[in-house]
Amino acid sequence: GTKEEKEYEIAQRKLQFRKPEKIWNTVLFFENGVTTDPELASLKTFVHYLDSARATIQLCLYRMSHWTLGDVLLKKFNKRRGLLIQIITDYDVFTSIDKGTTRLFRKCFDEGMSLKVRRSKSHMHHKFAIIDGEAVLTGSLNWTEQAFTGNHEDVLVTTNPLHVDKYMQRFRTLWRNSQDP
Amino acid sequence: GTKEEKEYEIAQRKLQFRKPEKIWNTVLFFENGVTTDPELASLKTFVHYLDSARATIQLCLYRMSHWTLGDVLLKKFNKRRGLLIQIITDYDVFTSIDKGTTRLFRKCFDEGMSLKVRRSKSHMHHKFAIIDGEAVLTGSLNWTEQAFTGNHEDVLVTTNPLHVDKYMQRFRTLWRNSQDP
Ligand SMILES: [Zn+2]
Ligand SMILES: [Zn+2]
Repeated sequence: GTKEEKEYEIAQRKLQFRKPEKIWNTVLFFENGVTTDPELASLKTFVHYLDSARATIQLCLYRMSHWTLGDVLLKKFNKRRGLLIQIITDYDVFTSIDKGTTRLFRKCFDEGMSLKVRRSKSHMHHKFAIIDGEAVLTGSLNWTEQAFTGNHEDVLVTTNPLHVDKYMQRFRTLWRNSQDP
Repeated sequence: GTKEEKEYEIAQRKLQFRKPEKIWNTVLFFENGVTTDPELASLKTFVHYLDSARATIQLCLYRMSHWTLGDVLLKKFNKRRGLLIQIITDYDVFTSIDKGTTRLFRKCFDEGMSLKVRRSKSHMHHKFAIIDGEAVLTGSLNWTEQAFTGNHEDVLVTTNPLHVDKYMQRFRTLWRNSQDP
């Protein structure tokens, strides 16, 4: 809505810092939860990206049932006045298929985060996050425990405006065309 | 193997062109197969990226059952002497779960493409392509008809060496640790 868009603009303008180029233009690889291989990322690395948000976190997630990540969001949201967190998730997943996702996102919504659900012919299959309107995380990784501990997954991190602007624009369109939970 | 690595090096060295910056640093969004919205990409756009490969296509795909894409690969491979196509796919998907993926990749293998299967605790869930060692396509999109026609999906395209080098390195490691079909 208009109020949220205004909040968002304000949050954006507050940003006075730039994210370090090299750290925010990289790829995280996961493999069956292995973290001893220096080529591979860990849940902790992933959390660090989320945790460094200063103004806005915009999530467009098919699934989200990993409570380590849920707790990071809830803690940040409750500690940091003015942090805007917007979530779009899949209608079918939220309303029926995946109780883990429903429980976690319901909690986020009850705590005051903005949440919308998006209908689709099959899946709203995105798994991307926009951090501070400045960086995007996207890839194969669903935010579930299986994905982090049992799968081979990649998450690309980028601050290239050619990428970020497209995700921002797409998020706005999806948000407008999504419904309340 | 050593022979393939040599072939690959040669193919890389042959490259005399650079990919246009803006076209190869972007994001493709799909939504239920809608293609009239200028914000959205089409299957045709996606095919164009594949089809512009000149030396190498390295695929790491959880699923691949879309014959439009299969036909593009087969046609390019048979027409262009010296084009190297390497494929890594998920062991479980290839050997049992998804007959569509098995049939398509089996055909690619029979026609002479290099193919390996990767075991994982749960899924080898990647869905990325490296084109000419110079660009990467990654995101939420499985290469299936449902993904292109029924889902909301994103595919990020990048030529940033901070991204591409990581995918190249990861592909090599996965390839080494994968088995013959
Ligand atoms: Zn899916
Ligand atoms: Zn999966």
